[in-house]
Amino acid sequence: MKLYELAGADRSRLFSPYCWRIRLALLHKGLRFQSFPWRFTDKDVIAFSGQGRVPVLIDGKHTVSDSWAIAEYLDTEYPSCPSLFGSDHSRALTRFIQSWADEVVEMQVLRMIIVDIYEHLHEKDKAYFRRTREQHLGAPLESSIKDRDESLQAFRNCLAPLRMTFETQPFLGGDEPIYADYIAFSPFQWARCTSSFQLLLGSDPVAAWRNRMLNLFGGHARNAVGYD
Amino acid sequence: MKLYELAGADRSRLFSPYCWRIRLALLHKGLRFQSFPWRFTDKDVIAFSGQGRVPVLIDGKHTVSDSWAIAEYLDTEYPSCPSLFGSDHSRALTRFIQSWADEVVEMQVLRMIIVDIYEHLHEKDKAYFRRTREQHLGAPLESSIKDRDESLQAFRNCLAPLRMTFETQPFLGGDEPIYADYIAFSPFQWARCTSSFQLLLGSDPVAAWRNRMLNLFGGHARNAVGYD
Repeated sequence: MKLYELAGADRSRLFSPYCWRIRLALLHKGLRFQSFPWRFTDKDVIAFSGQGRVPVLIDGKHTVSDSWAIAEYLDTEYPSCPSLFGSDHSRALTRFIQSWADEVVEMQVLRMIIVDIYEHLHEKDKAYFRRTREQHLGAPLESSIKDRDESLQAFRNCLAPLRMTFETQPFLGGDEPIYADYIAFSPFQWARCTSSFQLLLGSDPVAAWRNRMLNLFGGHARNAVGYD
Repeated sequence: MKLYELAGADRSRLFSPYCWRIRLALLHKGLRFQSFPWRFTDKDVIAFSGQGRVPVLIDGKHTVSDSWAIAEYLDTEYPSCPSLFGSDHSRALTRFIQSWADEVVEMQVLRMIIVDIYEHLHEKDKAYFRRTREQHLGAPLESSIKDRDESLQAFRNCLAPLRMTFETQPFLGGDEPIYADYIAFSPFQWARCTSSFQLLLGSDPVAAWRNRMLNLFGGHARNAVGYD
């Protein structure tokens, strides 16, 4: 399999939360893959996929894009490998967790690390990133980190549902991580790979879970290019 | 089975979100039960359960309190009836959804309806409710509804993950509701049974899901004593 993943100026700095979900999903299923670092402006490189974003997975004659579609593809095509979803019901519930991670957690993290992301981009991506993100924000990138300490408090508050869940179980999936964990972990890994800004207090049960996630697969996410 | 449920001055106004989860869970499993309306200050009536809150379920020689424990009890004891959780993985993911519903949705709803709840209580409960809730809020009940329009906007925003989920499936459980749906629906039913304040725009996909929930079991929740 071949996986196209977003990279920074350093080709080994992989930071997209959507690509991290799939990287961890492939490790979870025990499937081997070759990584192809990709930059935002390499639209022509993945034009064969019919769209312009990563992750893109090539598996033999199949090309799949969009992280959710890739996760479903992997569970359908490789049913004898450990499941990412576990059951139809838990796949449905995972949709909610993905919506929460994307709409709440990721948005809050972005506000705090957007300038750090920018600084780690390849030169050829910088103008594209600034233009598209500023259009979306309606303001300069730099303006969103001005109130970073307030954002940090709001961010920590928004994690209350995760915190409460870890009072009774070590992973969202229960005793073991499943795809929902990779989804929820991905914004933290995004930050870890691009920014030295400290998101969590060491005493936070969410930090303990993040540590468990960093330890998976021989410390795979912990050993990625990033910040401690 | 006997179910102790929180009631207002009108014994048939059942409004606790935790009791509603269990009421719908029992209907989901097709189990018959007798309802015992209970008021906040009837501590002695449920002293046999070893604690002072409802729901309390009596099933033969078993007494179970706490809504989560009751749901687990029902799925374990009645495995041949439709499952509330579906699988171990989805039970684990449901924990997260419960944490989100309790920590985010319920808190936001409470701010908007707390005075309406108070007005529907039995006279003997009013002083207890005011004292305990004002202690918790650190302010008079009436102060929390002062900025109700701002709270309403924040509330509607916090539903983004639900809204996004319903773009791809009709229920949190997928094609059919499961316990996660009853949990997430319960704060809406709490409001419906005590307040005429309009929480959702009719055009909101979350309102469409709420309608589907109100229609379940022959319109059971829709026909409950409350407001349209």
